[in-house]
Amino acid sequence: MHYDFFAPPQIHFGWDRFQEAGTLAASLGSRALIISGSRSLETNGVLDELKSLLSRAGISSEHIRTISHEPEVTDVDQVTNILQHHTQGAGDFLIGIGGGSGIDLAKACAAMITNRESETVLDYLEGVGQGLQLKAKPLPLMAIPTTAGTGSEATKNAVISSYAPTFKKSLRSPEMIPDIILCDPKLACSVPPEITARTGMDAITQLLESYISCRAQPIPQALSLQGLKLAIPALPQAVADGNSRTGRESMAHAALLSGIALANSGLGMAHGVAPALGTHCRIPHGLACAVMLPSTLKANRSVCEMQYAEIARHLDPGLSLSDADAADSLIQQIEALNASIGIPATLSELGVTSEQIPTLVADSRGNSMRGNPREISDDELTGILQDLL
Amino acid sequence: MHYDFFAPPQIHFGWDRFQEAGTLAASLGSRALIISGSRSLETNGVLDELKSLLSRAGISSEHIRTISHEPEVTDVDQVTNILQHHTQGAGDFLIGIGGGSGIDLAKACAAMITNRESETVLDYLEGVGQGLQLKAKPLPLMAIPTTAGTGSEATKNAVISSYAPTFKKSLRSPEMIPDIILCDPKLACSVPPEITARTGMDAITQLLESYISCRAQPIPQALSLQGLKLAIPALPQAVADGNSRTGRESMAHAALLSGIALANSGLGMAHGVAPALGTHCRIPHGLACAVMLPSTLKANRSVCEMQYAEIARHLDPGLSLSDADAADSLIQQIEALNASIGIPATLSELGVTSEQIPTLVADSRGNSMRGNPREISDDELTGILQDLL
Repeated sequence: MHYDFFAPPQIHFGWDRFQEAGTLAASLGSRALIISGSRSLETNGVLDELKSLLSRAGISSEHIRTISHEPEVTDVDQVTNILQHHTQGAGDFLIGIGGGSGIDLAKACAAMITNRESETVLDYLEGVGQGLQLKAKPLPLMAIPTTAGTGSEATKNAVISSYAPTFKKSLRSPEMIPDIILCDPKLACSVPPEITARTGMDAITQLLESYISCRAQPIPQALSLQGLKLAIPALPQAVADGNSRTGRESMAHAALLSGIALANSGLGMAHGVAPALGTHCRIPHGLACAVMLPSTLKANRSVCEMQYAEIARHLDPGLSLSDADAADSLIQQIEALNASIGIPATLSELGVTSEQIPTLVADSRGNSMRGNPREISDDELTGILQDLL
Repeated sequence: MHYDFFAPPQIHFGWDRFQEAGTLAASLGSRALIISGSRSLETNGVLDELKSLLSRAGISSEHIRTISHEPEVTDVDQVTNILQHHTQGAGDFLIGIGGGSGIDLAKACAAMITNRESETVLDYLEGVGQGLQLKAKPLPLMAIPTTAGTGSEATKNAVISSYAPTFKKSLRSPEMIPDIILCDPKLACSVPPEITARTGMDAITQLLESYISCRAQPIPQALSLQGLKLAIPALPQAVADGNSRTGRESMAHAALLSGIALANSGLGMAHGVAPALGTHCRIPHGLACAVMLPSTLKANRSVCEMQYAEIARHLDPGLSLSDADAADSLIQQIEALNASIGIPATLSELGVTSEQIPTLVADSRGNSMRGNPREISDDELTGILQDLL
């Protein structure tokens, strides 16, 4: 038993607790710079409400940028530049509100504004650029997730894409964990069913991959068991009825747990391949994870039977099956879950062609793949992807 | 689902990782003021080794005080005064090394040295004194637990006693959670069997009471399930063989989890009565908890059957019992555990007399008792304590 565990220091969770945004933010500073993650937060009045809640708590605020795609190097560099013109010093802090894209952009900018050895985030990303390290503490940050999925509100990295050249890499440091998480599951009620399904499957993939990762740790495993028990029944509820309070609460909590888990334990094959499917085939991240998850569980079954059985028995304490049968039942549950919420069973349904497979294989070797519990060779991965066409 | 969750931001856990004390402490400052929790840390060379590890990391250090009893108001006030003469400003931080007493004293002094509205901690304690609130951030603090028990390394309070007048109360603030926890289970190898048994039962009591508390929360419950599954078999191992690596690792991890759990969810009747047994009968805290635990589980059985059954099934996934029988099996396991490690079944074996019961009942109404899942009247508590004579 040997681990380093980094946790978000403050989590405030609950239905309609968005109303506390101002009072909670007051401990971070007196001037909020807001980065948001979808146009709908502007049109449905959430951003205006946030500014008004901050104002009532004596916090002035400026809305800096809305991003409606997964953040790219140019987004981080541009928004950091804008922030530099808007920051006034002590008392400034950031709020990231939205899904993974908005929160990741806020996390990356909070770090880049205090780390200026290079003018581009490219030079701080893992595996590309100059490999610079973040040294200075980022600007204080409050994260307000509005979709239950990435768990970005609880992680120490921001995923940044580029299309020329093509890559999807992380900016990473324990200091990037947001100082305060305000998680109000009600904010997700307006997320449409299709996005609810795929972001929810991202969270479920994170809970499962971190549990079996070769860097798996005890605290994240305890959290994953709880997250899976809540999320597997809740996701179809949240997809079927966007206003389902139980569905939204369980998914928001599970997504948060999945962020804590992955930040400490790493991930696996599904998250190894998903960035390549994102950059080369423009498949949204959660959808890519969801389609890859059953194959990932099958590819690791030979070394993870016991863990699958543990999870299956936690999901159903009455289960009286052998380890082997319990493990199989978990895989079947995940396949049935995907089917029940409209996730395709194949990559060809998402437009992936066999010609793309060599590039996908070559670009699946990032940090996530290194967490997979067994080594997956290029040949094996090629076969797995071909079977998914 | 509605909660506020505060976590220790950094945990470093592992056998022999005490060797990393210097490098880990370097992020807190350049000058360490050390408060330690038992004479044996001085005689067995651990303190000298700590100073040497700090020195090699470029950190100067001073050993301020060793405390070998549960900290009292006068201890906190005296040590805070000494610290005031030794602090030099930026770069100073505290290290608390020891069991609950040493770490609680360090936590209290870290808070009191920056909060000087009153010269005595008495005025900041819950339910006594002036009721002052901690406003300033405490001095940075690294906690190094050397006994697996109180979980004080992960909590937001310090328990402070007084004998004239007689009370045991908490100094409490989320800011009191230590900045860094370094938990090396090997440090507990020299703890004698009797103390291993009672501090271990303190941790187990915390895991159980926080799980059923009327302020119970999902994340602490996930941690408690894991902690109990590890600790219940590990405690007899650690008592029987102080060098048992599995025993010490499991207990150190479970104690840490119990601290996170209680800090967020509160406790119950056993911890409600334990301070009174400590101040009036001088029964060590862990021993008091251990003796009170079976009665506490029985007193709450009527409202907690489902939770007991959940725990029992997590401990033994093969269990095919009704909820009622599974709940009973949990209570029986705890009684058997106590018996196996030499914990008395009655309070009279610890010298408690029936004449003391009215005072014990009157002094059991602190913050912990308010977490108990059902109201325990004075009459009922009197009966429970009489049955324990």
